[in-house]
Amino acid sequence: MVVHRGSPPSLTPSPWLGAPLEQLPTPALTLELRTLRGNAQRMRERCRELGLRLRPHVKTHKTLEGAALATGGSRRGIVVSTLAEARFFAAGGWDDILYAFPVPRWRLAECSELAQRLQEFQVLLDSPQGLEMLLQNPLPNGKRWLVWLKLDCGNGRAGIRPKDPEALGLARAIAQGSPELVTLVGLYAHCGNTYGCRDIGDIQAIARATTVAVLEFVTALRQAGISCPQATIGSTPSCSHPVPEMSQLTEVHPGNYLFYDLQQTQLGSCKPEEVAIRVLSRVVGHYQHRRQLLLDCGWTALSLHGSDQRGPEGCAAIEGHPRLRLVGLTQEHGLVEDVDGELDFEKFPLGTVLALIPFHACATAAMHPVYFVHDAGKVVELWRPVRGW
Amino acid sequence: MVVHRGSPPSLTPSPWLGAPLEQLPTPALTLELRTLRGNAQRMRERCRELGLRLRPHVKTHKTLEGAALATGGSRRGIVVSTLAEARFFAAGGWDDILYAFPVPRWRLAECSELAQRLQEFQVLLDSPQGLEMLLQNPLPNGKRWLVWLKLDCGNGRAGIRPKDPEALGLARAIAQGSPELVTLVGLYAHCGNTYGCRDIGDIQAIARATTVAVLEFVTALRQAGISCPQATIGSTPSCSHPVPEMSQLTEVHPGNYLFYDLQQTQLGSCKPEEVAIRVLSRVVGHYQHRRQLLLDCGWTALSLHGSDQRGPEGCAAIEGHPRLRLVGLTQEHGLVEDVDGELDFEKFPLGTVLALIPFHACATAAMHPVYFVHDAGKVVELWRPVRGW
Repeated sequence: MVVHRGSPPSLTPSPWLGAPLEQLPTPALTLELRTLRGNAQRMRERCRELGLRLRPHVKTHKTLEGAALATGGSRRGIVVSTLAEARFFAAGGWDDILYAFPVPRWRLAECSELAQRLQEFQVLLDSPQGLEMLLQNPLPNGKRWLVWLKLDCGNGRAGIRPKDPEALGLARAIAQGSPELVTLVGLYAHCGNTYGCRDIGDIQAIARATTVAVLEFVTALRQAGISCPQATIGSTPSCSHPVPEMSQLTEVHPGNYLFYDLQQTQLGSCKPEEVAIRVLSRVVGHYQHRRQLLLDCGWTALSLHGSDQRGPEGCAAIEGHPRLRLVGLTQEHGLVEDVDGELDFEKFPLGTVLALIPFHACATAAMHPVYFVHDAGKVVELWRPVRGW
Repeated sequence: MVVHRGSPPSLTPSPWLGAPLEQLPTPALTLELRTLRGNAQRMRERCRELGLRLRPHVKTHKTLEGAALATGGSRRGIVVSTLAEARFFAAGGWDDILYAFPVPRWRLAECSELAQRLQEFQVLLDSPQGLEMLLQNPLPNGKRWLVWLKLDCGNGRAGIRPKDPEALGLARAIAQGSPELVTLVGLYAHCGNTYGCRDIGDIQAIARATTVAVLEFVTALRQAGISCPQATIGSTPSCSHPVPEMSQLTEVHPGNYLFYDLQQTQLGSCKPEEVAIRVLSRVVGHYQHRRQLLLDCGWTALSLHGSDQRGPEGCAAIEGHPRLRLVGLTQEHGLVEDVDGELDFEKFPLGTVLALIPFHACATAAMHPVYFVHDAGKVVELWRPVRGW
């Protein structure tokens, strides 16, 4: 059942196409096309060198255009985080869609509809109850449920642990229990624990441990005579600096790398110049007694992600102004100070555009109904993401 | 220039009208109609007793239906935080709209259009530059810009301080500089610093200090022969427990009170049963070795507001389950533990619906494209908020 669609595309051409960035209404989420293309291409090349298929996760941008870039135009092979995304991409002509969430009983009808409509709509399981539900609700016309078994290799969210005595039994039940109804496509692990790392060495240690845990489980399956053709791990930190062991997987599924962000820069996943996303904002007030600038950018345009350690300062860096700090964020306002307390107000007259580099691109993108994609300083595309569930 | 509209209303009736809450797809933002009505009525009565006009801020809900409830159906007299809201409410038949943001030069054309279209579209100023801009861009046909002077009475965001030597001069310039072009409507102060309080006494002290500062400035204006008919302060904590001094103002402009939330309960602004907002979520996983439940609710459905002090636990309480704690929040997943470490999984089978009481209703509402309004356990209305800027 379709509940929420994303904003439909405008019926009239946007007046902002062709506009210089400086003329955009603020706050505005902008994406630099060349940087997006570079990020997409580097990840594709990295995967090609490892002999891995890249199945990009689309949860960061949730746009047809972003997925087209990330898949190199194939329109096949993506991961989605919600059924709203699955429907949106299916309607946009995509196929081979993996819904990477423990398949919920109360939305099985929607999954079934997608599975019938697409050549390949793939679901995720981590429990016998999930499998039982699929078996009780077979697809019509001889089609089979395509299932990835979710493994928890240390991330501690969804998934069954590969060393869990029940894991092999669950894999066997998926693969061999009712092969006319259900197919075990592969093993899926998310190493989100890389986000807690301090350097690339730590990230690679987790990527290696996750990969090894998945591959050992693949071996155990093979020894038990269980066919499991695919194996995938994902996370932008691990896929930005892959370890050689990952070449023994069949695919990877990072997502954030298309945009990157401040957090990924801090983790070492990317260089600062590889971050494609900004939130443009303008100076709307001077408060000389507090030595503060007021911006037309609050948490509705940025989110509060990044504030847990350092308060608002952690939510964004201000491009080209390393001495400026975001010290306050309310719904529609941001407050900026100089790190040393002094601020040359004449350098920032009312109307000055400042570009904020957000801490967490996924969270910031979720706040915007449209993204302004630019090249050579002008808007060349408007991307409209899907929202909801 | 219209940039982003909110989601247009569906052309077909929603299949969810009349549905029991337990059948809603999750995550779902729900609002209890009786509680909304009670909150709206209590605030109106409180204002009537004080002889104050209530000009509700609509930034929390951003819906025509919410504003209709809050204004008692008058469709007049609201505060908006963005021009997207201003256009949305103007298109919905509202008038007497106060755009409570330092009026930006680069969006003056939009303000001018609204000022011409509405009987009363009011703007906010806190600087001579803002006034100069209005004077240089007069409204046609003899219409005047309607201006509120924004005062900073200790909140430290936008506004000129009433004791600032330039404040009286700015008020005079607005009121008397070019009366054929610009009218000083009133003084506007936001006591957002009440959110840092620990109890009602502290909140009332700030409400009193803000009121007194505004009233002293009114007196100074009167003594200087400057006409300033109106004076308003706002914030849900202060207006939920108003001090007698506030009766000397002409109006107040709280917003959050229509929903209330966990934060307002903690501040003492409301009783727990006065919180109208919930995010419904379902149990999608059991992880017995970690003693954790997995929910289909992440930060896309809740925001990370409230996490700064206590991590994810601060983001929401779980209704009816005081021993349960939200210990993890990623994009689409929530993790729940029992406070004592034990968890009776049989009480929470897969599919169990849990109702989360969000820390910050404004932030949670901003994450949802539709709100499910219910009465007696069934969905009676769907509200669709405006977004963007």
